[in-house]
Amino acid sequence: MNVEILNIGDELLNGTSQNTNATWLCGKASRSGAKVVAVSTVGDDITQITDALDQAGKRADLVIVTGGLGPTSDDKTKDAALQYFGGTLVPVATEIERIRVLFEERGLPLTERNIAQGWIPDTATVFTNPVGTAPGMGFTRGATTWVFLPGVPAEMKRMVEAHEKDWFHHQPTSQTFIFDEVMIIGVGESFVADTLSSWQQRLPDWLSLAYLPSAGLVKIRLSCLHHAPGEARGVIVKALQQVLALFPGDAFHTSGLSWDQYFFQELKFRNRSISAAESCTGGYLSHRITSIPGSSAIFKGGMVTYHNTMKQAWLGVTDQMLEQDGAVSESVVKQMAQEIRKKTDTDFGVAISGIAGPDGATPQKPVGTVWIGIADSDQVSAKMFLMGGDRIRNIEKSAVMAMKMVLNILSISQ
Amino acid sequence: MNVEILNIGDELLNGTSQNTNATWLCGKASRSGAKVVAVSTVGDDITQITDALDQAGKRADLVIVTGGLGPTSDDKTKDAALQYFGGTLVPVATEIERIRVLFEERGLPLTERNIAQGWIPDTATVFTNPVGTAPGMGFTRGATTWVFLPGVPAEMKRMVEAHEKDWFHHQPTSQTFIFDEVMIIGVGESFVADTLSSWQQRLPDWLSLAYLPSAGLVKIRLSCLHHAPGEARGVIVKALQQVLALFPGDAFHTSGLSWDQYFFQELKFRNRSISAAESCTGGYLSHRITSIPGSSAIFKGGMVTYHNTMKQAWLGVTDQMLEQDGAVSESVVKQMAQEIRKKTDTDFGVAISGIAGPDGATPQKPVGTVWIGIADSDQVSAKMFLMGGDRIRNIEKSAVMAMKMVLNILSISQ
Repeated sequence: MNVEILNIGDELLNGTSQNTNATWLCGKASRSGAKVVAVSTVGDDITQITDALDQAGKRADLVIVTGGLGPTSDDKTKDAALQYFGGTLVPVATEIERIRVLFEERGLPLTERNIAQGWIPDTATVFTNPVGTAPGMGFTRGATTWVFLPGVPAEMKRMVEAHEKDWFHHQPTSQTFIFDEVMIIGVGESFVADTLSSWQQRLPDWLSLAYLPSAGLVKIRLSCLHHAPGEARGVIVKALQQVLALFPGDAFHTSGLSWDQYFFQELKFRNRSISAAESCTGGYLSHRITSIPGSSAIFKGGMVTYHNTMKQAWLGVTDQMLEQDGAVSESVVKQMAQEIRKKTDTDFGVAISGIAGPDGATPQKPVGTVWIGIADSDQVSAKMFLMGGDRIRNIEKSAVMAMKMVLNILSISQ
Repeated sequence: MNVEILNIGDELLNGTSQNTNATWLCGKASRSGAKVVAVSTVGDDITQITDALDQAGKRADLVIVTGGLGPTSDDKTKDAALQYFGGTLVPVATEIERIRVLFEERGLPLTERNIAQGWIPDTATVFTNPVGTAPGMGFTRGATTWVFLPGVPAEMKRMVEAHEKDWFHHQPTSQTFIFDEVMIIGVGESFVADTLSSWQQRLPDWLSLAYLPSAGLVKIRLSCLHHAPGEARGVIVKALQQVLALFPGDAFHTSGLSWDQYFFQELKFRNRSISAAESCTGGYLSHRITSIPGSSAIFKGGMVTYHNTMKQAWLGVTDQMLEQDGAVSESVVKQMAQEIRKKTDTDFGVAISGIAGPDGATPQKPVGTVWIGIADSDQVSAKMFLMGGDRIRNIEKSAVMAMKMVLNILSISQ
């Protein structure tokens, strides 16, 4: 099954918004075993939209269109659909009522513009939007289906999750999509590729391999469409176990979870708790951990000791440590890690202090110098990293490396 | 000048890689005054690539193509260009020598595949790649130029920055690109559009208007290409002042800065400092503030009191407050704000406690209920919000609303 994603919106063409909908939809389609043949983005312009609908229909069995269904005059997608597929706008009573209730619940005045969102071409199938005002629409011509969804990510995702079985699997197939993933943390991408080159050559040719790098990590994904899923899964798992063996302590079998979800799962499974004392990461590690639903099961609290006065007053860092070793040092992160652990009564206390940049470097400590300390009931350990990236990347890498150090201690201690 | 971005690569279609090249190129083009008419992504397939080259050439004066120039067999872009534009591959001595030196410097063996990267169609202009192996290529047909660049972001960016003046401004123009922006915080997009509808109709037709919504805010951008920049700027500023007047306390003249940069600039300019006590946002507000270089000028520290025991031990929240009002309440955020302000000796103490979701709701307090408190030297105030979004969106909105409340107090107090 060939899928094309078509995203509509001027804001996607001026460089101010990352097109996260496309990435998410590509992932959904791929994991369903569909093949995404193209992603296109055009502006809020009726001619551009109808041209794109037409071209996508030639390439794909399913075209997922997002955006431009909002209430304002620059939203042109419904007009374009009407022009391309024909039909007349008719009021859909259930949708108008749903919109009315939504506004009532939020205590907002209902405008004509919002009611108009409940008028849909009579040539379309209506898909209810459980979390927003704009309903979705489906059109079919020949063997191709076009599904129109709102561009608001939360609304789009909910609607795809409600209908994906119908949309992605409407052609029966005897093959199943199977994938599995390993993440390698803190190892350069080219070193990973060199280390894996002979392993890669021995993979069967029906397996697809993807290297997916992001800040501080490289994700290795093996996938295939196969008529014997159990057998294929066995081959994939065996191949990934070879990867795990090639990077001892650096590779983790994340199986499709995000790094944060994997970290949460591993700590929760072992019933361990964590706290964070952050300087250069400024709360980012705490944010990453608490972005996962249910994170209160593993995370109790943290301190962002950005100024040295806070490191001293809250975490017992001494004048002597700051004078002799500086704020970015082994002694300081060890003290911070031990103290935050004690203050929160958690299994692990994690501390990060570094020079995120662009300012703050010294001849001895260039931008990207980061010390990370981990305290547990037995010991406190610390490591220094030279990341050398830009500010945001150094902050991201520091958080990922700190999480990795905790997991390493867990594997050693069990 | 119309620009189309064409990104090539199977990895962009399986949902594992965010297409950051497209966003970056869109931003570059927009800021140069060019109009991006479409962004397309296709896989490593010669027919798909040549079709996309053809369609893009019909829409755009400049087509920027990235990806698929690597040394491996799944890179098909050069073959597709050869097929579409004609010509013969010829060795480019300067490029082959550059590649040889690059491998020597890195101590890596030079392979036939890498030397082949220095063979370029004789129909192309060659653009040297200062940081990688694959050179860029330019082709012209009629009034349209196609520029091919490597997909590695660092290489692509360096090459664009070296040539952007030629590529984006190859049509001589006496016009200058001018833009200015206002952000409206905490007001629904459709309400913003309704309020601005008659204002919008009075705008001169040479001005472009964009509504750019993201979590908790709507950015209003006015832009134009104009031969008299001073005069045009005057018209834009006057129009945006009308927007500021229509949303008193909710609209901010951000002038192209991000919300976080604007917040930092306003506090730094007034020499004010801030601290954060976070529960449901889990460190995200501190992270947003400290993501800006130089943020130590305004931010001293924060506490992430995720568990109630931390709210009590660190911020003086009492049993009585928790029992009578609950952790998500006016009394709790006021106490947290006052105490974090005192503990950090800052001008403002900001506290956030809410139910980010998906769990934790009660009949009285649905998901998205968030209390925000702000303490300064004179007073402590608090406001409740019903955000009703998903977890990540509620966290983002809460941080943005807290920053807005601080700016509101600043405008009132001076």
